[in-house]
Amino acid sequence: MTRRIIVQKYGGSSVANPERIQRVAQRVVETKRRGREVVVVVSALGDTTDELIDLAYQVTHQPSERELDMLLATGEQMSVALLAMAIHTMGEDAVSFTGAQVGILTDGTHTKARLVDINAKRIVEELAKSRIVIVAGFQGVNLNQDITTLGRGGSDLTAVALAEALKAEVCEIFTDVEGVYTADPRLVPQARKLDTISYDEMLEMASLGAQVMQARSIFVAKRFEVPIHVRSSFSLREGTMITKTVKAMEDIVVSGVTLQKDEAKVTVRDVPDKPGMAAQIFGELATNGVNVDMIVQNVSREGATDLSFTVVKGDLPVTLRITRRVASRIGAGEVTTDEGVAKLSIVGIGMRSHSGVAARMFEAMARERINIEMISTSEIKISCVIRRQHADRAVRVIHHAFGLGRRARRR
Amino acid sequence: MTRRIIVQKYGGSSVANPERIQRVAQRVVETKRRGREVVVVVSALGDTTDELIDLAYQVTHQPSERELDMLLATGEQMSVALLAMAIHTMGEDAVSFTGAQVGILTDGTHTKARLVDINAKRIVEELAKSRIVIVAGFQGVNLNQDITTLGRGGSDLTAVALAEALKAEVCEIFTDVEGVYTADPRLVPQARKLDTISYDEMLEMASLGAQVMQARSIFVAKRFEVPIHVRSSFSLREGTMITKTVKAMEDIVVSGVTLQKDEAKVTVRDVPDKPGMAAQIFGELATNGVNVDMIVQNVSREGATDLSFTVVKGDLPVTLRITRRVASRIGAGEVTTDEGVAKLSIVGIGMRSHSGVAARMFEAMARERINIEMISTSEIKISCVIRRQHADRAVRVIHHAFGLGRRARRR
Repeated sequence: MTRRIIVQKYGGSSVANPERIQRVAQRVVETKRRGREVVVVVSALGDTTDELIDLAYQVTHQPSERELDMLLATGEQMSVALLAMAIHTMGEDAVSFTGAQVGILTDGTHTKARLVDINAKRIVEELAKSRIVIVAGFQGVNLNQDITTLGRGGSDLTAVALAEALKAEVCEIFTDVEGVYTADPRLVPQARKLDTISYDEMLEMASLGAQVMQARSIFVAKRFEVPIHVRSSFSLREGTMITKTVKAMEDIVVSGVTLQKDEAKVTVRDVPDKPGMAAQIFGELATNGVNVDMIVQNVSREGATDLSFTVVKGDLPVTLRITRRVASRIGAGEVTTDEGVAKLSIVGIGMRSHSGVAARMFEAMARERINIEMISTSEIKISCVIRRQHADRAVRVIHHAFGLGRRARRR
Repeated sequence: MTRRIIVQKYGGSSVANPERIQRVAQRVVETKRRGREVVVVVSALGDTTDELIDLAYQVTHQPSERELDMLLATGEQMSVALLAMAIHTMGEDAVSFTGAQVGILTDGTHTKARLVDINAKRIVEELAKSRIVIVAGFQGVNLNQDITTLGRGGSDLTAVALAEALKAEVCEIFTDVEGVYTADPRLVPQARKLDTISYDEMLEMASLGAQVMQARSIFVAKRFEVPIHVRSSFSLREGTMITKTVKAMEDIVVSGVTLQKDEAKVTVRDVPDKPGMAAQIFGELATNGVNVDMIVQNVSREGATDLSFTVVKGDLPVTLRITRRVASRIGAGEVTTDEGVAKLSIVGIGMRSHSGVAARMFEAMARERINIEMISTSEIKISCVIRRQHADRAVRVIHHAFGLGRRARRR
């Protein structure tokens, strides 16, 4: 007997109220009745997480991260219980679990813990009893049995990791959009849904703010080759498959344009041009759990250089504190910040074999007199930091420049 | 070094909003600074538990008890995290735990689980680090690591059991009243606060609806002789001590009058007068987790007897279903219910040595033309079932008849 396990993940908006919970239950039950063993991962109901954070800040200006995790983990625990109840009303057996109960073991970094291991024994036992298993996303426990949370998009990570641990045939990520688009359809009406996308491209899209799925989970999916299906919880249409191999790859230069507005730019002036300077700054930021995104350092003048990088705005206060401390220690100059920026990127594995992609992007911006403040490139991505007020227009311009919306492409 | 541990329990109304949580935090911190090691047990914020139950019933008409426990346990988990944060702002170290995390082991009866064991190791470790330990009330886990809840007043039980496990010098139960009164002050303005009361009396008062503390927890307190101090979270005044020995006991006949309006009466007509009939009915009810309160059976006529008992109204549907099934099996007659009743009781260890107490109670009711429908007595208690519409008046009449409010008594 081959077991056909499907892991489904539903985000907070899919379970925002009792009616939506019932709709999700219906979908889960239908999947089960199509002969699959179903494991469901759910986020907290609607805005519950934000409400809990508000509550914490009504009690203290600086909540302890351990206690914040304790508090936030209740959101997903509510969802799993309610979804199990809704499934029961439809005549199927279902059982809910917290992260701790299904052995989702993490490291000790509260509020952004890293997955260490999953002991799926309990889930396998329950599936064998023909039950639908519902697991609280976003949460785990450390070795000390303290509750931890996985940070933004943590429920995706839970789903992918469970799909890998259970060798699921697919991990379905349900969202409020139909799949992955060439650009944000709210910004670019001509944007098209992609039928397939590679892990690498999706990884870049995700970390660049395509908001459909979180980068860490795609990274895990890629590493273990977990097939992902990003689709809408409000329709039965196929969404976008994220897989290793993508067909008809040769003629694709750029798959999509993404925009990120939640980052701030930090600049350290006059960093001494000696080995180890950057390591000291970014090492200390990493130790304090700050994820630095784009880093740009240009050639030095007179034995010193300016170093710029971006971080999510929420991390700006801690970033500034640490960066100023290190800057003073290593004899660098002033540390300045700029929150009026946006990051626009194009992503596509075709870039590897097609030249002139960057030039086409920069020309399109120049024609629109949009100034580029920072540039950073990878094998399959080009990112530019620009003024935030030009960001939406820039996305439309670039989308058009690469002909992304023009025809139904083969992929 | 003698360790002086205090267990404090705060109910839902004491932590209903951020301001109240801060007030509780202040009180906890003061206790710690008076040189005590403090373990705090908290209920869910305000009406959270009711709101969660509402949410469950919006999803299903018959929530699974396991999933209901999963859902309800989030309420206390929120409280403990928020209280820990509030204590941090006052400069003390505090750490919160779920029932599972501090090894509160229960049996498998969801929604009204029974405590099996507490492994206080983790708490002792944290106290040794000079931390205030905050434990989620009302919840535990069974051997399967499923979350269970302890039923109504479960947080009191958590507090008493922790006080016993830690050999605390006292278990303080904070409520919105000043202590235990001779009668409900809202019904009887002359009611007086008692300085001390015995476990036995408090047990009767509690199970009779004095609502200050739950009977199960007093039972555990009595068994292990855990000193209880029932007091107000809104004042610093001493409340009522519940202990084994009560001073100046001889002249006390009746300590208090209690009233219970949440019970319904069930009557089984024409039960065959053979051994084992009652055992079948009450055995099956117990197996299904129904707590039967008062049971009255009179002498039989013509080989059959009528059997009446009371249960809390919430249990009436299941009680009726079971009772009708058993009644039909044992050849009894009709099963009827009456929800228009109230139970009035007087409690006092002095009854043991004073005669005429019952007579004085019945006479007072007779003078007011209040009919008595059922009577049941124990060593230290006399209970009467009467029509609900006479209940409040009856309490005042009885309170006066026993001179409970008249003078400042010595206890």
